[in-house]
Amino acid sequence: MRLASLLLCLAVASPAIAQDQTTIPEAALETAAQLREQALADDTSWRVTESLTTEIGPRLPGSEADARAVAWAEAKFRALGFDRVWTEPVTFPRWVRNSESARVVGAHAQPLVVTALGGSPGGDVEAEIVRFADFAALEAAPDGSLAGRIAFMDFQMERTADGSGYGDAGPVRSRGPSVASSKGAVGYLMRSLGTSHARVANTGITRFAEGVEPIPAAALSLPDADQLNRLLERGPVTVSLSLDVGFDGEYTSHNVIGEITGSGGSDEFVVIASHLDSWDLGTGAIDDASGVGITMAAGHLIGQLEQRPRRSIRVIAFANEEQGLIGARQYAQRHADHIGLHLLAAESDFGAGRIYGFNTGAPEHARAATRQIAQALAPLGIEHMDDQGGPGPDIIPMVQAGVTWAWLGQDGTQYFDLHHNANDTLDKVDPQDLAQNTAAYVVLAYLAAEAEGDFGSAPRAGDDR
Amino acid sequence: MRLASLLLCLAVASPAIAQDQTTIPEAALETAAQLREQALADDTSWRVTESLTTEIGPRLPGSEADARAVAWAEAKFRALGFDRVWTEPVTFPRWVRNSESARVVGAHAQPLVVTALGGSPGGDVEAEIVRFADFAALEAAPDGSLAGRIAFMDFQMERTADGSGYGDAGPVRSRGPSVASSKGAVGYLMRSLGTSHARVANTGITRFAEGVEPIPAAALSLPDADQLNRLLERGPVTVSLSLDVGFDGEYTSHNVIGEITGSGGSDEFVVIASHLDSWDLGTGAIDDASGVGITMAAGHLIGQLEQRPRRSIRVIAFANEEQGLIGARQYAQRHADHIGLHLLAAESDFGAGRIYGFNTGAPEHARAATRQIAQALAPLGIEHMDDQGGPGPDIIPMVQAGVTWAWLGQDGTQYFDLHHNANDTLDKVDPQDLAQNTAAYVVLAYLAAEAEGDFGSAPRAGDDR
Repeated sequence: MRLASLLLCLAVASPAIAQDQTTIPEAALETAAQLREQALADDTSWRVTESLTTEIGPRLPGSEADARAVAWAEAKFRALGFDRVWTEPVTFPRWVRNSESARVVGAHAQPLVVTALGGSPGGDVEAEIVRFADFAALEAAPDGSLAGRIAFMDFQMERTADGSGYGDAGPVRSRGPSVASSKGAVGYLMRSLGTSHARVANTGITRFAEGVEPIPAAALSLPDADQLNRLLERGPVTVSLSLDVGFDGEYTSHNVIGEITGSGGSDEFVVIASHLDSWDLGTGAIDDASGVGITMAAGHLIGQLEQRPRRSIRVIAFANEEQGLIGARQYAQRHADHIGLHLLAAESDFGAGRIYGFNTGAPEHARAATRQIAQALAPLGIEHMDDQGGPGPDIIPMVQAGVTWAWLGQDGTQYFDLHHNANDTLDKVDPQDLAQNTAAYVVLAYLAAEAEGDFGSAPRAGDDR
Repeated sequence: MRLASLLLCLAVASPAIAQDQTTIPEAALETAAQLREQALADDTSWRVTESLTTEIGPRLPGSEADARAVAWAEAKFRALGFDRVWTEPVTFPRWVRNSESARVVGAHAQPLVVTALGGSPGGDVEAEIVRFADFAALEAAPDGSLAGRIAFMDFQMERTADGSGYGDAGPVRSRGPSVASSKGAVGYLMRSLGTSHARVANTGITRFAEGVEPIPAAALSLPDADQLNRLLERGPVTVSLSLDVGFDGEYTSHNVIGEITGSGGSDEFVVIASHLDSWDLGTGAIDDASGVGITMAAGHLIGQLEQRPRRSIRVIAFANEEQGLIGARQYAQRHADHIGLHLLAAESDFGAGRIYGFNTGAPEHARAATRQIAQALAPLGIEHMDDQGGPGPDIIPMVQAGVTWAWLGQDGTQYFDLHHNANDTLDKVDPQDLAQNTAAYVVLAYLAAEAEGDFGSAPRAGDDR
């Protein structure tokens, strides 16, 4: 999710506490340059990504693999030389996927490739489909007009480098099933929010509004959505959808945190984050084992310096990002009373593509430091895009509480070929690109930890955004 | 399958009946040039391919869709103006796929993406896997050495334009499970014979030798095969494989034949063929709806001429190619007593890529006519490759009976990204490429039908190859 515009507003709106300009000492810039070159030649991020995707594989929140992933992350932080490693509990409803299938019935009977949306109830429905070109068209359908029908949401998301195509498509998956149900639909089938013509479907979370009857909701692969369109040209189409999925009790997972403890006696720390959970269809390589690899490796490399940085660096592997930033929300609540200690926070959760842009949400007094960091990133081919960016998803709850975000924007042109589908596997990750990402995170984290002055993080009292 | 070398030998070895040189009249060459340009601008092949993949979808031999496909083909031939349309029965054992799954068990528990090989029995096995790099390594394993194990065949096929990578890999799928069983294996898992890193597995037929106990046999997607390799680096790997598949009685399908009846009173005819069946994972777009579209369209265009060609053109959509050229074998048997009437035969069964090469297996007296056809194909970017080519799979039984093959070689560089897996859907077919193919088939079929003299087809008495 890119909430750039919203969050630039938040940054501008943050309480302007008069203070000195934040700057970064020359010695720190020299060390950062060394770290950057070292990171480019280092394969820790690759090895961590390989380990998580291979040894744990898919890590659906609440699954047996979720617990194994938490234990894996603790052990990996320790093996990588972090000074402190701990977990913090995260509780959420457990959603399980047992089986899923769909088929066209009648004269053109044939199977369809589908996957249930996270949060969908189970159920078996067979009904005529009604096509909608986009969310607005569905919203415009008269109440009751979908009675006894399956809504077929055919919105086609755009391929973009910055993920804006996904942002534009958002409510199609998150709210579409609820809106369809409110108009009488018995099921919801959507063209996957994906950009690949591989015949795999993309899952992702959906949510039913209070008082709306949950209905079975699934995504079709792009070739299958195309097929339904061709069949609709020939006449009415009836689809049978069968989902054995649903919520099953509560589960407690954990955010896992590794700290490189600062030498300066400050309580402040820099946060670089990722999420440990994944959907269950692939092995969560680009979403988000690569983020885990990049941030763990960045912390590790800083921990290998002869001297600890002035402030601490916390590498956080969040629980259950996929079903609503649940680990991140519970983290922000838990740490609300010292939110100002979070000097700057960034998340790697947009795949494993090269980083092309950088920015922070820092207020004016820290723009000079932002520019210094940008200069240290420039040799990596990273541009200071000072009107762009925003927090990664798991940083949003912290930012809402007052933390300043940093953004290292990855090229996401291929991201939605793989996102939330079975093709998200390790072979799609390029070790060189991963090293470039690690180099960027190591520079950002180290320089922020060494900055003289802050980046504007401060509690937003009474702000419940 | 490309059996070029075998069949060049057959051609050379065919009885050299002394006769005049075969040539093609100038008027026919002029008409062929018009047909060629017309075909390039015509979308019949696309419309037929779209119709078959959309209205029927997957057409597993013996399935309900098999019967629908036969009725579709008869109706389509009629709609396209063929003079005679008929079916010929083809009987075979019916193989069904109900469900299939596999997972790694133990400390690194995770699901694997697999698909059962056609001809596999059902069954549930859980055992340690033993890796083999290629078929020779499996053959070299001592008898009994696989007792209680699952053989993991990790052979990696090469991407090539001419499909030779598949030919090289052949026995890995067709004979691997049988060989593994003969050495005690309880199951067989193979890296798919495919070239795509999409997480879909490639099916295809396998066969157990007489006296060998059939064992559950399945293919892994390439990312899953990679995953097993990484897990094997960490220690022994146990896999649970569960297949609900198997043979279920006998079924009678049909070869479907459409004829453009020649005006010259000759009994001879040119054959251009494809196969109507497909595997069940995709919609059989490149394998082989595109072949059906290309050959039906070629016949149709010739049928639109003011005058019928001198000899007939038979467009054959064969039943059950996938499980062993069953329709083609029964066709060759049924027509054994007039095999010499098959003037020349070609099949389009290598996808929808552009045609780059042409040749025939004709003996010396018809090489001049082959060169004339090549000249008429040259404007399509097709080269006369006079030491290459061979019959398409369904032409092999006819060639073994004495029919001369023609070859229109398609670029198969992408073919094994899609072959026998779920990604074989219509969106992978380029209508322009399809039109180029149609233009080539229309030229070949028309000029062969107009040739003065034959192409060397003659019964091979007593030849049971």
